[in-house]
Amino acid sequence: MATQGQIITCKAAVAWEANKPLVIEDVQVAPPQAGEVRIKILYTALCHTDAYTWSGKDPEGLFPCILGHEAAGIVESVGEGVTEVQPGDHVIPCYQAECGECKFCKSGKTNLCGKVRAATGVGVMMNDRKSRFSINGKPIYHFMGTSTFSQYTVVHDVSVAKIDPAAPLEKVCLLGCGVPTGLGAVWNTAKVEPGSIVAVFGLGTVGLAVAEGAKAAGASRIIGVDIDSKKFDIAKNFGVTEFVNPKDHDKPIQQVLVDLTDGGVDYSFECIGNVSVMRAALECCHKGWGTSVIVGVAASGQEISTRPFQLVTGRVWKGTAFGGFKSRSQVPWLVDKYMKKEIKVDEYITHNMTLGEINDAFHLMHEGVCLRCVLDVHA
Amino acid sequence: MATQGQIITCKAAVAWEANKPLVIEDVQVAPPQAGEVRIKILYTALCHTDAYTWSGKDPEGLFPCILGHEAAGIVESVGEGVTEVQPGDHVIPCYQAECGECKFCKSGKTNLCGKVRAATGVGVMMNDRKSRFSINGKPIYHFMGTSTFSQYTVVHDVSVAKIDPAAPLEKVCLLGCGVPTGLGAVWNTAKVEPGSIVAVFGLGTVGLAVAEGAKAAGASRIIGVDIDSKKFDIAKNFGVTEFVNPKDHDKPIQQVLVDLTDGGVDYSFECIGNVSVMRAALECCHKGWGTSVIVGVAASGQEISTRPFQLVTGRVWKGTAFGGFKSRSQVPWLVDKYMKKEIKVDEYITHNMTLGEINDAFHLMHEGVCLRCVLDVHA
Repeated sequence: MATQGQIITCKAAVAWEANKPLVIEDVQVAPPQAGEVRIKILYTALCHTDAYTWSGKDPEGLFPCILGHEAAGIVESVGEGVTEVQPGDHVIPCYQAECGECKFCKSGKTNLCGKVRAATGVGVMMNDRKSRFSINGKPIYHFMGTSTFSQYTVVHDVSVAKIDPAAPLEKVCLLGCGVPTGLGAVWNTAKVEPGSIVAVFGLGTVGLAVAEGAKAAGASRIIGVDIDSKKFDIAKNFGVTEFVNPKDHDKPIQQVLVDLTDGGVDYSFECIGNVSVMRAALECCHKGWGTSVIVGVAASGQEISTRPFQLVTGRVWKGTAFGGFKSRSQVPWLVDKYMKKEIKVDEYITHNMTLGEINDAFHLMHEGVCLRCVLDVHA
Repeated sequence: MATQGQIITCKAAVAWEANKPLVIEDVQVAPPQAGEVRIKILYTALCHTDAYTWSGKDPEGLFPCILGHEAAGIVESVGEGVTEVQPGDHVIPCYQAECGECKFCKSGKTNLCGKVRAATGVGVMMNDRKSRFSINGKPIYHFMGTSTFSQYTVVHDVSVAKIDPAAPLEKVCLLGCGVPTGLGAVWNTAKVEPGSIVAVFGLGTVGLAVAEGAKAAGASRIIGVDIDSKKFDIAKNFGVTEFVNPKDHDKPIQQVLVDLTDGGVDYSFECIGNVSVMRAALECCHKGWGTSVIVGVAASGQEISTRPFQLVTGRVWKGTAFGGFKSRSQVPWLVDKYMKKEIKVDEYITHNMTLGEINDAFHLMHEGVCLRCVLDVHA
């Protein structure tokens, strides 16, 4: 391509400081170095983790930065030694890398990869510990190793999933975060069996994907829990069979669920990031075997707690990141499942906007009327 | 037998009130009713759970009562409908029942049994919700459905494991609680694989049984953690390969273990009952897969806590009761393993005393010089 090896100047939404509106800026994106890939981002969605860091509550958040981690695009150019993708490939950037070589990747027990974490955690690239983004020479930090709120981004090659070029990028961008997180929490982390009773706390995109995953796994009852009763109608379409609004009950919600289920649920999923709800999700599990999976991300410094008796009597407390999916291996598989209509994606997209409207899109998300808003990055 | 159908008057150690010395009394033991078994207890050991209830800190503790739950004896008589054991059978009374019929037993997922819990939890028998123990007409509560600090006791038939009559009762009485709890935590609850790195917090009987179980499972490193360095010598005999005394370090013990193991242990076991140690045991686990099992029993009202990030990044928090062993099915199997010298039992017995010396035996236990003290109940 004509741009290969050149600095690209393009539009990006820059978070200059915490909790201030993002600003669409002309950003310089340096060429990819060894082991790096420059991607033309076509579509990006917004996720609560972006909002969390933007809010300033994330102590690891660095500013100025370019947020965004749920997106799809096309490889523009690759750095030295990159063999797995080439210019023109359709890809989903993945905030969970998969190098295949580190202790984590080789363990066979986790999808977490240790290879580039030390760099992505502090907003830079491994090769020279610097950012590829700048504005008039001033560096702008990367975010989660993805920074998809930009028309072009640079990521590590271990963070790029190559997908079916026939897949519509304006849809499958969602397979970069929320939907796989929910499906995988059920399939990989909890391993829900047919006939199970499942409770889902929080009916946003991730919670609905949990419901969808539980339905596919053959759960007999899928109990949705949310303080907004309006969510039940849409939740039905994703597999939720019963709805409980904690505000309708005087008893603690864990007791309500235990009573509803003759002793508790087999599996519960916390998809909010609220530590009190995490406790309720554990304690509504059935004695002897109930397993609770923490999917939501709590604010920094907050802690979960319970009586140890809850665990001694057989409950299990786990968590999941990206639903336990190995990113480069399994995101393409999820795209294929979508293409075969085996998983939903379109149904999670409630809004479409442009990169220039990103601040409005965040407002929508905070108002709760939005599941996923997909931004056309080049419109 | 001549005593069948008769009230038996015999010696028992009665806890009249919390935290006061036990008193050896002449106790009347009523005949077994339907579904009940009267056992002549020959040997009983002491366990920290007895001491905990005796201390008065257990809000469910009822007085006066007859404590004791780690014992062996011979069936004296059986009530109506009892078919699985008969007079003369050698047995181990089990505080975890196994009815084979309840939701728990049929789940295939837990060793907890729901059948008699409602009665044993409040110190009585299911049949008439009354005690079989009395002194001059005054009822004395049962404890854990076993009450083995008595020359005769009455238990539910679902709580009796029939064992090889050739097994020495003065040894295998230990298979009623502590040793199976430790072995099973490793084999059933954690399912430790060959090559694993294991940490054991607390090197009493249960902790040493964890070490023994981990060695049998092929663990490559078994790190014993205790604030009493004298315990290392004996711990070596049970499989502990390294010893860490938290008092020797300024850093939190979880950090010491993470540093020692290039990122954390694969499995950890808390065998003390201290909620701060439970947290350390979780947090010393390796990111991505480390599993921590709570084996110790914490004081009532205490809570465990951690940052949810610990679980979201792949650690698993579990607990175990009686090591996940199904009592009636598996205690006989453990006895057989002992007879084949595949598991240790004798090595845990550091002291032998008589029922009349029970208060001295408890003192020994509190001083930490004793692993298990076995009382000859009829001496």
